[in-house]
Amino acid sequence: MPADRLKVAFLGPLASFSHQVRVINSTPSLTPHYWPKVDSNKCFVILQAAAESFERTDAELLPHVSFADAFTAVQQQVADYAVIPFENSTNGSVVQTLDLLADRSALYTDVEVCGEYYLTVHHCLLVRKGTYPSGWAGYDGSITKLYTHPQAWGQCNNLLSQHFKGVERQDVSSTSKGAEIVSKETGEQAAAIASKFAAEHHGVDILKENIEDRADNTTRFLILRNTRVERTAQLAFEQPSTSSSASTQKTLISFAIDHSSPGALANALLIFKAHGLNLTSINTRPSLKRAWQYIFFVECGRTPSDENKEAVLKALEDLRHATEFCRDWGSWKDQLSM
Amino acid sequence: MPADRLKVAFLGPLASFSHQVRVINSTPSLTPHYWPKVDSNKCFVILQAAAESFERTDAELLPHVSFADAFTAVQQQVADYAVIPFENSTNGSVVQTLDLLADRSALYTDVEVCGEYYLTVHHCLLVRKGTYPSGWAGYDGSITKLYTHPQAWGQCNNLLSQHFKGVERQDVSSTSKGAEIVSKETGEQAAAIASKFAAEHHGVDILKENIEDRADNTTRFLILRNTRVERTAQLAFEQPSTSSSASTQKTLISFAIDHSSPGALANALLIFKAHGLNLTSINTRPSLKRAWQYIFFVECGRTPSDENKEAVLKALEDLRHATEFCRDWGSWKDQLSM
Repeated sequence: MPADRLKVAFLGPLASFSHQVRVINSTPSLTPHYWPKVDSNKCFVILQAAAESFERTDAELLPHVSFADAFTAVQQQVADYAVIPFENSTNGSVVQTLDLLADRSALYTDVEVCGEYYLTVHHCLLVRKGTYPSGWAGYDGSITKLYTHPQAWGQCNNLLSQHFKGVERQDVSSTSKGAEIVSKETGEQAAAIASKFAAEHHGVDILKENIEDRADNTTRFLILRNTRVERTAQLAFEQPSTSSSASTQKTLISFAIDHSSPGALANALLIFKAHGLNLTSINTRPSLKRAWQYIFFVECGRTPSDENKEAVLKALEDLRHATEFCRDWGSWKDQLSM
Repeated sequence: MPADRLKVAFLGPLASFSHQVRVINSTPSLTPHYWPKVDSNKCFVILQAAAESFERTDAELLPHVSFADAFTAVQQQVADYAVIPFENSTNGSVVQTLDLLADRSALYTDVEVCGEYYLTVHHCLLVRKGTYPSGWAGYDGSITKLYTHPQAWGQCNNLLSQHFKGVERQDVSSTSKGAEIVSKETGEQAAAIASKFAAEHHGVDILKENIEDRADNTTRFLILRNTRVERTAQLAFEQPSTSSSASTQKTLISFAIDHSSPGALANALLIFKAHGLNLTSINTRPSLKRAWQYIFFVECGRTPSDENKEAVLKALEDLRHATEFCRDWGSWKDQLSM
């Protein structure tokens, strides 16, 4: 293993993931003892995000049993990066991640956000390897059984009602589980609805891609690095941008205010506007110092220009006077900017 | 049952609660089929909040199997009020409640917030009825076994290390369960750590009150009513105020902004400040209309004066121009105002 190979921490894994996925070549040091604590389907999605974010690099993906462990790996320079889910388009913010970013015990003082990654899980129709050599164009209507997670049926209604009316449906515990069953199926003509990633993982064929009625349910991940590590100072991986136009920079700042002072929160938020920074998200968590006092997490964006190149620095300077504490979690390229 | 008896909806119940608690005289219409879905310990806390909020009235407490059902009961005028948890001082906002207040399908258009209630669960040392007639002053050190939920041991460390060193400790599934075990104990001298409410519920004696090292872990509840129901237009129950000074009014407003317009969120929040309204909490939930667009929930406070008596109305008027939609969820007396 070359010494300069990037190490990327993520929540995971089942050991079986770690040696099967193309970009992964880790030797998990986790004892089986820990595995049952981790939701395998959640791991699968985070592993996919980590793999896709660093797809063009020769990265080693390091599984960790909790988000806190992934933060610690970056803080202690055991990992170069960590890939952490921040919010989901349907379920909202990931409270566990906000609580780590609250960093109430100052455990992660060298950790910063250097990027983001959006993962939309597209559904595919998967079949056992070699079943339909000519693909969907040559599909003869012979599939007799379908497997997927209960939520996925409703998300692929158009295809199912057009081509699979009356075909037996079997609920399984995860979409990935469906792909696994199909990979081992020998008796019947079965198909599973699951991700492309699950197809690669379980070695099955994709009969048809993007079969969902509407692509939603996207998870946004933050990519973390250690501020003291030189070799990650410039983002060492090339992120595929969803847009070719001049991109926006996003910044994450956390702060607490003096709650006894009326208007303190409005004054703090005003500072962003005063420096031309557009608020794009606000989250709060209990301070745990006193009841009903909060730590605020604000994301703001700006289209870089000569005029505003110091906007974030100036805003932080003003915030230091208007808040009890504030912390710059870093700036990165907005992957959704239009 | 007099026709004018107040009906209060809450999340619950186990039928056993409903006829034992002093203020309750409901005939639960729920089939046992539904009960296992509901976390009994959570129900117990919400029942306690409902009972305490309406303690000085002859209220009938109506159990409902979900928060959504309690909202519907108020909307359909089956209940006069509902008592719903909104946030916890340790765990933060109750996402389920925010999603109901988002009211994305306009199901609860007549529901408003008319009050709040803070419930701090204090721990007590409970013993079987009649065991120590002279109370804590006459306690002879004869307790040989203690029961409580694992979390409670650490919260009562001072008392335990001073008076119960070396006494056997038995973990139970909830503090209330501990009180139940002690109520039936005959063989040994046992005590439980649980709430005063659990003591009344299980008919055991309180040997010592407020034995926690630090009173925290408070839950804030919102009290809902129907805007069209005349008899609840003036809050028909007398809320015990924690303060005697001129109290603050709180208002809850939800809104959505045009996310493509830079500064839209800052402009909306500025309106509160412009009308002298102090922001006391901000929460967000996904709009579920488009990914990465949110519904905002803002609470603001003001100390009523001649000058600002129309502040909320004026702010709402301005908000209507600055937002895609906004909704006034009502105003009520701040129970924490100093």
